[in-house]
Amino acid sequence: MSAAETVTSTPLAGQGRHLPASGPRRGIATVCLSGTLEDKLSAAAAAGFDGVEIFENDLIASPLSPGQVRERCADLGLSIDLYQPFRDFEAVGPELLAANLRRAAHKFDVMEQLGADTVLVCSSVAPAAVDDDDLAAEQLHTLASLAAERGLRIAYEALAWGRFVNTYDHSWEIVRRADHPALGLCLDSFHVLSRGSDPAGIRNLPGPKLFFLQLADAPRLEMDVLQWSRHHRLFPGQGAFDLPAFVGHVLAAGYDGPLSLEVFNDVFRQADPERAAVDAMRSLLALQERLEASGPVALRERVRVPDLPPAPDLAGHAFTELAVDDVSGPRVARALAALGFTHTGQHRSKPVQLWQQDGARVLLNASPPSGVSPGGAAVCALAVESADPARSARRAETLLAPVLPRTRGADEAILSAVAAPDGTSVFFCRTGEGDATSWLSDFAPTDATRGAGAGLTRTDHVALTQPFDHFDEAALFYRAVLGLEPETITEFAAPFGLIRSRAVADPAHSVRIALSVALLRRGEWAPGVPDPQHVAFATDDAFASARAMRALGAPLLRIPDNYYDDLDARLAPPAELLTAMRRYSVLYDRDEHGEFLHFYTEVLGSRVFFEVVQRVGGYAGYGAANAPVRMAAHRRLRIARAGRGKRTDAKPSPKSEGR
Amino acid sequence: MSAAETVTSTPLAGQGRHLPASGPRRGIATVCLSGTLEDKLSAAAAAGFDGVEIFENDLIASPLSPGQVRERCADLGLSIDLYQPFRDFEAVGPELLAANLRRAAHKFDVMEQLGADTVLVCSSVAPAAVDDDDLAAEQLHTLASLAAERGLRIAYEALAWGRFVNTYDHSWEIVRRADHPALGLCLDSFHVLSRGSDPAGIRNLPGPKLFFLQLADAPRLEMDVLQWSRHHRLFPGQGAFDLPAFVGHVLAAGYDGPLSLEVFNDVFRQADPERAAVDAMRSLLALQERLEASGPVALRERVRVPDLPPAPDLAGHAFTELAVDDVSGPRVARALAALGFTHTGQHRSKPVQLWQQDGARVLLNASPPSGVSPGGAAVCALAVESADPARSARRAETLLAPVLPRTRGADEAILSAVAAPDGTSVFFCRTGEGDATSWLSDFAPTDATRGAGAGLTRTDHVALTQPFDHFDEAALFYRAVLGLEPETITEFAAPFGLIRSRAVADPAHSVRIALSVALLRRGEWAPGVPDPQHVAFATDDAFASARAMRALGAPLLRIPDNYYDDLDARLAPPAELLTAMRRYSVLYDRDEHGEFLHFYTEVLGSRVFFEVVQRVGGYAGYGAANAPVRMAAHRRLRIARAGRGKRTDAKPSPKSEGR
Repeated sequence: MSAAETVTSTPLAGQGRHLPASGPRRGIATVCLSGTLEDKLSAAAAAGFDGVEIFENDLIASPLSPGQVRERCADLGLSIDLYQPFRDFEAVGPELLAANLRRAAHKFDVMEQLGADTVLVCSSVAPAAVDDDDLAAEQLHTLASLAAERGLRIAYEALAWGRFVNTYDHSWEIVRRADHPALGLCLDSFHVLSRGSDPAGIRNLPGPKLFFLQLADAPRLEMDVLQWSRHHRLFPGQGAFDLPAFVGHVLAAGYDGPLSLEVFNDVFRQADPERAAVDAMRSLLALQERLEASGPVALRERVRVPDLPPAPDLAGHAFTELAVDDVSGPRVARALAALGFTHTGQHRSKPVQLWQQDGARVLLNASPPSGVSPGGAAVCALAVESADPARSARRAETLLAPVLPRTRGADEAILSAVAAPDGTSVFFCRTGEGDATSWLSDFAPTDATRGAGAGLTRTDHVALTQPFDHFDEAALFYRAVLGLEPETITEFAAPFGLIRSRAVADPAHSVRIALSVALLRRGEWAPGVPDPQHVAFATDDAFASARAMRALGAPLLRIPDNYYDDLDARLAPPAELLTAMRRYSVLYDRDEHGEFLHFYTEVLGSRVFFEVVQRVGGYAGYGAANAPVRMAAHRRLRIARAGRGKRTDAKPSPKSEGR
Repeated sequence: MSAAETVTSTPLAGQGRHLPASGPRRGIATVCLSGTLEDKLSAAAAAGFDGVEIFENDLIASPLSPGQVRERCADLGLSIDLYQPFRDFEAVGPELLAANLRRAAHKFDVMEQLGADTVLVCSSVAPAAVDDDDLAAEQLHTLASLAAERGLRIAYEALAWGRFVNTYDHSWEIVRRADHPALGLCLDSFHVLSRGSDPAGIRNLPGPKLFFLQLADAPRLEMDVLQWSRHHRLFPGQGAFDLPAFVGHVLAAGYDGPLSLEVFNDVFRQADPERAAVDAMRSLLALQERLEASGPVALRERVRVPDLPPAPDLAGHAFTELAVDDVSGPRVARALAALGFTHTGQHRSKPVQLWQQDGARVLLNASPPSGVSPGGAAVCALAVESADPARSARRAETLLAPVLPRTRGADEAILSAVAAPDGTSVFFCRTGEGDATSWLSDFAPTDATRGAGAGLTRTDHVALTQPFDHFDEAALFYRAVLGLEPETITEFAAPFGLIRSRAVADPAHSVRIALSVALLRRGEWAPGVPDPQHVAFATDDAFASARAMRALGAPLLRIPDNYYDDLDARLAPPAELLTAMRRYSVLYDRDEHGEFLHFYTEVLGSRVFFEVVQRVGGYAGYGAANAPVRMAAHRRLRIARAGRGKRTDAKPSPKSEGR
């Protein structure tokens, strides 16, 4: 096995079309995705959605007539479940009512041509509207009557910032008073949950009056709710809302329409729509699984995703694989040796080295093309110990993870792998020394005798800098595919811009993957590729490890004295400890559970470095507070190296940047 | 003259060092700038700042000892005006007080080594603090006594989100009660103005107690004030605060310390610090000018910037220059001819064509290197009619605009130009037919007889997509250098992500420059370079112009029928007008002042297109609501062209993006 040759991953398009058809129908609003209407419909179909909500602005900018959109959707196997939004209709004076009814008639024409039978009418924000529920009900009754004449229906939604109607129970009160069969409710999880409303009351609403359900997750943010809604919604499982509970209430009420996503998100708005649509579909599949796990028996059957086996238990990182070349390979190998690793194995058919120290394992893969810049190195794969690798792979495939093709020699172990959103290969395996089915059997032992090592026991975590467009997708990917739980999001000001990081881990913390992304983007003025990845190894004694590694000549990163002076001022650690930390450039953090001692190597091959961590007590973090200090130290080394060799921090001229 | 050869602009570094030394001292907090402390200090010095505030985190991550930082600053000619911040000190129990005093003693050590005599203590946000002004005053008195023993002093600042102390008058009340000569106030414009406090009361504070002044502008945002402060501050003149009035109050009270910028901004945090420091310095020079214009006579003398002449009146766009090559040049020329322009002049020494139609002028510059991708075209210069071009140039230079070198043939007119933040050359000129000093005299008339044209009268505006890092810098640049006023910021969801746009214009609206930027960034999945620039020409009759241009074969952009159906639904225009708009693909907008009829050409040479606009009444906008429709139409053409020729919308593989 090896990962580097597998990176030409399977195409995503069309993959989702084989989704099982049972269970609730799944939909997506075109506003979730980037591009033109044509781009969006193709992407939704390719990801396996059953239907779409047509967002009006997408239609307006399209050269396809509504009839042609209908045909396009039919060709793609998509139903048009909703046309939206129709704004600022109700509770107005007679003149404005007439204008609004004329406007509605035009839109009903469009809907007839589209073949869409339901329109979303959201509660008014117009200054001209009045606070009169009876008037609102009466006018919505009029609208519903006109809709019914054409076989259409009205789904009334309370915007969280609606002028007078901004809660679901208020919107229901108006629909109840209007009492027209063509008038019902649209429930949007964001509008309900962002206001802190208790969604349990939804169970008591009459199911046939629930015309439509829009789903969005969101992080908890202290900001204006309209801005929060329009810029920061997320797909289910990416934010902080309890959507299984919410959807459980809606289904309990008797709703039997589609689960449809309506997610306004600044990042998704600019990301590849095919990939975003797959991310969206994965979020619904994972939501159904959580709903199945938490809901009553009757509900379980309705939401079950066939072919989705539960996530097998994980028991740690099996290995991390680095792509290297002729220049970086020896350099990384020297560094591993100086960290106490031994080159214990050589792949039987490929230029892949196995380096081991107790339970910590690293593969160095020099297969061309390495996929890294000349002299560079990169994490190309991570492997987890699964209780059932085959089941892990089946689960990943059902959750739309691109399955990677493998080239396998005779007598080599079968290893299944999928591609994570950033292109990293994720392997599912079992590691057993002397076990012929273990991936270890692919490696012939070398003559090297294992040395005393430097106290490293296992891989603590793998830290991967994510492409800008795929941070939230990645967290959901690992959560869903591997059954990991996302931890708290951290944001901090790094020397070259803000960084957001979020780790995912299994309940036992045997597998930890720390994802990070530069918010906005990373400053292009800074030299080099400023987003290295790293592998962190666990030790039970950071100082003993540091001492041993220093004796072996490891390229450890020097931390400035100022850091320790500030640590002294802030925390007043015992003098002896402070002296030791300063001497060995060990950094320190603590949380309510315990303490964290950690140190770093220099960046090796432009993209990769190593970290050694000692967790004391139940410390749960990753030392994010110290990351800016590490980044500044890495930058100084780059500049110093550039000064000695060729200059790598040439800035783009204003011209080349501006044009 | 011509601009394309001048784009290797003068370096920015060191330029500001020649700033006049009179007037208030100018400072900047290191937290405003990206990079390591060493990067920041160099950038501040290069931009001509007198002093810096050392932000603690920058020092902690630096390998320079405080003494070495002091030496570095001395070498760079920078004073260290403030050390900051010291948090959560006051109004606590005796045990925590002891710990806080120990912490302070450590920081006083650092300050002594730095040679910084003032530390910022910001009002507490600690859960352990109590609401007791007397206790806060007593403990601050103790702290000030310890500081005074070392010749240091304490500047106490009310954070806008301070737990108990969050207004400047409250912080003053505590300082007054503490009554210690080494304890005074730090006033921060953001903390005062973000809460809507009336800053006029500052005039009544005793000047000697105003130890420090921090300046930041900000846009008006509806969000949590802490997040607003930490992510969205701007340099003076880039936001919505009335900083001349604020500073006027502080100076009236007798403050005589530096004007120091403290701007936390996500974009600046990742931008080239040398450029950001120049932007910062320009903001202070422009602030001083506005202060001089608005303040009392005594104040004027104190804040005047020598060598900064007032902005001359502007009288329109003289010309817009496009860089073209052998492929794009003929294509753009054909398009101009079809828009009714005539090729009236040929530059006497360079491959530059002059195209004219009434007062609208375009130069096509085919000088190699064109600075554009093969077959592409780009706006490389804009020229404004100045009442005093030489004075405009002097003003620009004083405001740190990079002055562009010129190569001038014998008998050619002198034209001064500076580089805008996006690299566009900005020329100051006077256009007089038959005037030997006019730039027009550099062009030999062609034989072409001017045709009837197509009704274009002048250049209405030039629309320039800005590099991500330089949007706010650009708005301030045009505001300060040309004396234009920034208009309202508009944000809209475009097919490939959010767009923010802001125009700058002179009071008479004879010169309008529309700046736009993709928030976050523009989706890399989309084909081509998705951020074209354009030049908009004015007509008095959009339909007559469109008819004439269509007859001439102009490559006008087709707008979808759906757009007109929606326009009908929304605004119910007269049927005849709607028919004409639909027929000629004319778009429509209106505001409280008037109406806007406009249409576009296709994109020519990958980066440039033209627009024709008719302003009816006092319509002040740019039809931003229609921009997404235009962008979608342009994208369709790109895809159609790519389908006919080589495919240009190949997506990066997950691999190449992830690694």
